[in-house]
Amino acid sequence: MSDRIIAARVVVCSPGRNYVTLIIETASGLTGIGDATLNGRELAVASYLADHVAPLLIGRDPAQIEDIWQYLYRGAYWRRGPVTMTAIAGIDVALWDIKAKAAGMPLYQLLGGASRERMLCYTHADGADIAEALDAVAAKREHGFRAVRVQAGVPGLNRIYGVHGDGAGDSYARPIEGDWDTSAYLRHTPKLFEAARERFGPELHLLHDAHHRLTPNEAAQLGRSLEPYRLFWVEDPVTAEAQEGWRRVRSQTTVPLAVGEVFNSIWDAQLLITERLVDYLRATIVHAGGITHVRRIADLCALYSVRTGFHGANDLSPVTMGAALHFGRWVPNFGIQEYAAHPAQAEEVFGWDWSYAGGHLLSGEAAGHGVTFDEQAAARFPYRRQYLDVNRLTDGTMWDW
Amino acid sequence: MSDRIIAARVVVCSPGRNYVTLIIETASGLTGIGDATLNGRELAVASYLADHVAPLLIGRDPAQIEDIWQYLYRGAYWRRGPVTMTAIAGIDVALWDIKAKAAGMPLYQLLGGASRERMLCYTHADGADIAEALDAVAAKREHGFRAVRVQAGVPGLNRIYGVHGDGAGDSYARPIEGDWDTSAYLRHTPKLFEAARERFGPELHLLHDAHHRLTPNEAAQLGRSLEPYRLFWVEDPVTAEAQEGWRRVRSQTTVPLAVGEVFNSIWDAQLLITERLVDYLRATIVHAGGITHVRRIADLCALYSVRTGFHGANDLSPVTMGAALHFGRWVPNFGIQEYAAHPAQAEEVFGWDWSYAGGHLLSGEAAGHGVTFDEQAAARFPYRRQYLDVNRLTDGTMWDW
Amino acid sequence: MSDRIIAARVVVCSPGRNYVTLIIETASGLTGIGDATLNGRELAVASYLADHVAPLLIGRDPAQIEDIWQYLYRGAYWRRGPVTMTAIAGIDVALWDIKAKAAGMPLYQLLGGASRERMLCYTHADGADIAEALDAVAAKREHGFRAVRVQAGVPGLNRIYGVHGDGAGDSYARPIEGDWDTSAYLRHTPKLFEAARERFGPELHLLHDAHHRLTPNEAAQLGRSLEPYRLFWVEDPVTAEAQEGWRRVRSQTTVPLAVGEVFNSIWDAQLLITERLVDYLRATIVHAGGITHVRRIADLCALYSVRTGFHGANDLSPVTMGAALHFGRWVPNFGIQEYAAHPAQAEEVFGWDWSYAGGHLLSGEAAGHGVTFDEQAAARFPYRRQYLDVNRLTDGTMWDW
Amino acid sequence: MSDRIIAARVVVCSPGRNYVTLIIETASGLTGIGDATLNGRELAVASYLADHVAPLLIGRDPAQIEDIWQYLYRGAYWRRGPVTMTAIAGIDVALWDIKAKAAGMPLYQLLGGASRERMLCYTHADGADIAEALDAVAAKREHGFRAVRVQAGVPGLNRIYGVHGDGAGDSYARPIEGDWDTSAYLRHTPKLFEAARERFGPELHLLHDAHHRLTPNEAAQLGRSLEPYRLFWVEDPVTAEAQEGWRRVRSQTTVPLAVGEVFNSIWDAQLLITERLVDYLRATIVHAGGITHVRRIADLCALYSVRTGFHGANDLSPVTMGAALHFGRWVPNFGIQEYAAHPAQAEEVFGWDWSYAGGHLLSGEAAGHGVTFDEQAAARFPYRRQYLDVNRLTDGTMWDW
Repeated sequence: MSDRIIAARVVVCSPGRNYVTLIIETASGLTGIGDATLNGRELAVASYLADHVAPLLIGRDPAQIEDIWQYLYRGAYWRRGPVTMTAIAGIDVALWDIKAKAAGMPLYQLLGGASRERMLCYTHADGADIAEALDAVAAKREHGFRAVRVQAGVPGLNRIYGVHGDGAGDSYARPIEGDWDTSAYLRHTPKLFEAARERFGPELHLLHDAHHRLTPNEAAQLGRSLEPYRLFWVEDPVTAEAQEGWRRVRSQTTVPLAVGEVFNSIWDAQLLITERLVDYLRATIVHAGGITHVRRIADLCALYSVRTGFHGANDLSPVTMGAALHFGRWVPNFGIQEYAAHPAQAEEVFGWDWSYAGGHLLSGEAAGHGVTFDEQAAARFPYRRQYLDVNRLTDGTMWDW
Repeated sequence: MSDRIIAARVVVCSPGRNYVTLIIETASGLTGIGDATLNGRELAVASYLADHVAPLLIGRDPAQIEDIWQYLYRGAYWRRGPVTMTAIAGIDVALWDIKAKAAGMPLYQLLGGASRERMLCYTHADGADIAEALDAVAAKREHGFRAVRVQAGVPGLNRIYGVHGDGAGDSYARPIEGDWDTSAYLRHTPKLFEAARERFGPELHLLHDAHHRLTPNEAAQLGRSLEPYRLFWVEDPVTAEAQEGWRRVRSQTTVPLAVGEVFNSIWDAQLLITERLVDYLRATIVHAGGITHVRRIADLCALYSVRTGFHGANDLSPVTMGAALHFGRWVPNFGIQEYAAHPAQAEEVFGWDWSYAGGHLLSGEAAGHGVTFDEQAAARFPYRRQYLDVNRLTDGTMWDW
Repeated sequence: MSDRIIAARVVVCSPGRNYVTLIIETASGLTGIGDATLNGRELAVASYLADHVAPLLIGRDPAQIEDIWQYLYRGAYWRRGPVTMTAIAGIDVALWDIKAKAAGMPLYQLLGGASRERMLCYTHADGADIAEALDAVAAKREHGFRAVRVQAGVPGLNRIYGVHGDGAGDSYARPIEGDWDTSAYLRHTPKLFEAARERFGPELHLLHDAHHRLTPNEAAQLGRSLEPYRLFWVEDPVTAEAQEGWRRVRSQTTVPLAVGEVFNSIWDAQLLITERLVDYLRATIVHAGGITHVRRIADLCALYSVRTGFHGANDLSPVTMGAALHFGRWVPNFGIQEYAAHPAQAEEVFGWDWSYAGGHLLSGEAAGHGVTFDEQAAARFPYRRQYLDVNRLTDGTMWDW
Repeated sequence: MSDRIIAARVVVCSPGRNYVTLIIETASGLTGIGDATLNGRELAVASYLADHVAPLLIGRDPAQIEDIWQYLYRGAYWRRGPVTMTAIAGIDVALWDIKAKAAGMPLYQLLGGASRERMLCYTHADGADIAEALDAVAAKREHGFRAVRVQAGVPGLNRIYGVHGDGAGDSYARPIEGDWDTSAYLRHTPKLFEAARERFGPELHLLHDAHHRLTPNEAAQLGRSLEPYRLFWVEDPVTAEAQEGWRRVRSQTTVPLAVGEVFNSIWDAQLLITERLVDYLRATIVHAGGITHVRRIADLCALYSVRTGFHGANDLSPVTMGAALHFGRWVPNFGIQEYAAHPAQAEEVFGWDWSYAGGHLLSGEAAGHGVTFDEQAAARFPYRRQYLDVNRLTDGTMWDW
């Protein structure tokens, strides 16, 4: 009586950006779509899926999502990490897509039904200097956004995160190298937000991404210096391999903190959450083991007053955005959703029923997660290797990007 | 397009025992059944539901389980506690029953699919003295049980938990009063399990319930004295309002510990779980806010190597057992399920598709949780007030039952 | 020689608001009055008392208050929670009323005699905007109040706690739904108190109730932003199921904190008190198990420099206010008493000898707690179901009210 | 003047087992060999290297090992995990091989020179029952081994870790599924070591691997039960994603504990080490980022009295063993080295100058790490997909292998 998986295919395509997509088909004719994109390391995940894991799916009951998740997580022996957990996520989301289709329900219904009708989102505004950054904010505000992440160039630095300098190199050949000076950054950033508040008043939600570049004490300094400007959050002020390091930041400032777009499992955040060291968790469905696992992360967060703030750069495919919006429709402790429009070509390959309106994102009502994938169209956009940036201090030292 | 609730009725009946049942009906013709029985305080829950909460359900979308849960939990203002959380559980289980029926799936499929085919269960064996208790164990073992909770009378005491003395009074008029002497109990209990291991060998799982009567240090003494007999667990050695009190027990013995049949929310167990002070959590679906909330408890448990060991006395109606077995079918960190057969008359009122076989319980495959309720039959078994026991020390002091 | 209880009746009436009153009569002709009102869930408590507990009181010695308390608390098996503890409180206060009458003494004498002659109280001043709120404060100050809780509408929100918007719905049919935006609140509230201090100078005690709506970190932000205005306290900035969460608030601000009107037992506050995370405890006699239990809470508070600040909204009947003022007359670590006048009709049903004068409340000298109840008058005011408000974020998410 | 990398090739071959080997060639004619084998997920690492990372090495100075390590670790953005850290390890070891060859020195000289002449090693002895296991121990002892890991079949289980049952399936098609029963294991294991000590006396070092299958409390029980037999260590009694979980084990037993063959970075062990929760750390050069990173792990260990006990199953290629023995030659806090002979065919592909003698392993004196790789020979042994086992409880639940 139960259904069974008859095919599991990985397709790597590049409609504007590289995406790794998993298609699972069942004997009863259902198709599930999962995203398994790991920006800059796409083919390793594709190999993990195609060469090692996909063959194991054939013949299994697609309804046994939990068992398959545990089979892949525990059964790999070598646990966690971005490649493994992205591969598992691709399968998990495809299976939830199938289950929701089998139930004839939009995915959020299986999670517990709608807790809200629309999801607040934030977008990006960048500029080479403060004036340019604020103009970018103004443009986003006119487009209806109520929350904007602002990044501005720092005088003396050529290229920093979120702000694209000129002549930056060829990311298809090798990572572009940015430069970094923490002192300059710490001096400059409060000016950016002082100017932003002056121009836009108190209501617009302002966010900022420090992109892993500070020590905990420097992050505490940054946090304090930004408190007068009431940011929605400061993201990733420090790397988080050492979760206890965040105690230092937290002890010194009440600036809201967000973390976790690079996290792959609940263990990457367990102490950060349970010691209430952060306010928003950004672990995504695609990189943290899928809906099955991220639901556990979000539920742990809820116990400790932490809200979701999912990563949503456009290197996560429309499939991940679709799943995220169904998740956001349900999850009681929703915070905010990052939103960056996908490349125009992606619309030739992916179809979706989620939408943007007035500073919010809306999930659709189609059965499943509502995102489709056109394999023939995908074939028109072959994979092209591309790298994320790296970062060096001005003396040449490798630093965190 | 969405369905809506058109009726929510509470039925209190007593087919052998008192049960409070909630029936929710929807415009599309679906019916959900929930258990809201709180042994000895049934009518307070029935009033909570019928007089205050049921009217609020009419017209709502039954698919919005999470929103309704939050509405009832946060919206009550006065939170937690057995009456409130049992009422919420009754509604929550009925709504999950409806959602699974709407999806045409057995409930465990909505939770993530089957992680196992059968659920290990334990039953009860009691005796006025050790010999009688062991005979009772032998009878259960012959019936196929692989795990048996053993309670024996303590010399010098008339009536203790799990062992019914004679002339015990009329529980319909007032609580029967047992007597208690911790020293006698601590001296006697190791003898019970020494004899049990001698008679039944090392394989049979033996459990024991200390029923809240010890201090943490006394519990540590008990635990140490039982270590040679390798119990599956010692249940409720101390009351748990002060969760930190269990640190003392835990620091002194490795005897496995179970706790929580009286818990109503995750907050009752948060420290017990996160400090790994227990091995099994017994919070039930009916008393801890339903599937929506117990899923969160179980997931927290999993992070800390705690397994489920749901309460399953027969004052929980067949509906709760049905829901528990669907839950157990899915939950990755399943431990064991308590099982006590319901009164024969209950079969005239409730219908169920779960079953017992060879020391295990099996969930059914009907859509929903698989338990039905016959309102007309229920009317033949009117409610009759009955009390749980109380307990006094031999000097007359009120003690924990 | 000992007296015995011959009757225990529950009366639910609605002289302006709903009240649940317990009347206990003894063979010797004494009558004790207890309040068992749980706003919005009144009938569940009434059922708990009338259907389950009252019958057990008949024949007992009313002087055995401690034994009866333990009998009801431990003997219920299912412990704690608002319904249970309110029911126990109703009985406990009635028994203390009887005992004091038997002694021919005002209740405070049995607690240890008077520690003070009058109890500082605070009242409420609300306004749709800051100007209106401050006018309300001025009116209260003219009436002699030395401490005023101030709540003001937040621009952009229709209806928030303490401030009644227009056309908000029918609380007799269902909870009125307020809306909430934490960012707007955090921006606006400091302005309210800046204006209040400007207008009223430094001496008037200003209080504020955040009504459970913030995360700990947001509460820390609020506390810091209010420090310049030297509030008497900030009440309930966050929910308190997770007591450890308050460490975050406390580590970041010295603003005095009050908590606990929803608490039902000492366990709800144990960590908050012993870690000195709060300054005032608001657990009330009616919802936290009566005089017997609240005395223990207050005594624990004293060890850790925490003072009483009893809840005193007018959904607590005049009986609770009477008991609270006797308690306040005695308790060494008295802080302040909330005071909101009861509806005029309540005076037709209840009689009391406590009084207000010059910003203080005074307890009476009649034997017992000094509050009487006219059952015939009560019959003129039948119960009418009414709900407390609920609260949603502006995106529709259920939130804490 | 500096050299530069002109080629970086990945070769996947299967001389008896699958191995992933990285060959780096420099302009000056030096060749470095690295192992990047991740058992059961080999091709994902090969893709990570060949498709994403190897191109970035071309043109770099091979002497800049630290910079390249940081470039790959920080520059990947998505950090840690088995695939990433194994890929980095492959490069790191090849670069250290080159540097040592450039210096004309055996690798241990660059680490700080020899601290000892030989490295104590342990090997494996398994048996379907206790008698067979002890015979295997005897055989190993006769071969000179002074330390033996002993695993025996558990009555009632078909196939458990380290003990191969019959007819177990085809690991080339899918993971073989073992079965598991913790109770049976806990009862049986003390008997194994009681018999071993009886037969072999007190001097032989006995080790045991619980292979991640216990909860912390069960591990404490195991540890206590084995204390009389003075084991060298108990390995991996529990999974280690939650490092704090080991506090429970450690608080209850003094049995020496080893952990970490699945670890990929210092962050996986930071709390285990700094809280002294273990005695031996098993993180390997191949899976934990190479010599550059494991040196840091070992140095942290030394601060807290933790010794090395490197994983050394034969799915780590001879390259990893060569590097490990140079590391062991130097590292001050060396503990023991696991040793399992490689398949005979591996000798056709790899050449090495390390050797076994009298219960110890000896590193060679050739420049570099002393292990060579014959690409032409490798071509004769094409990759064949094979899976590690998985494990289920007897009720079907997925469990840790």
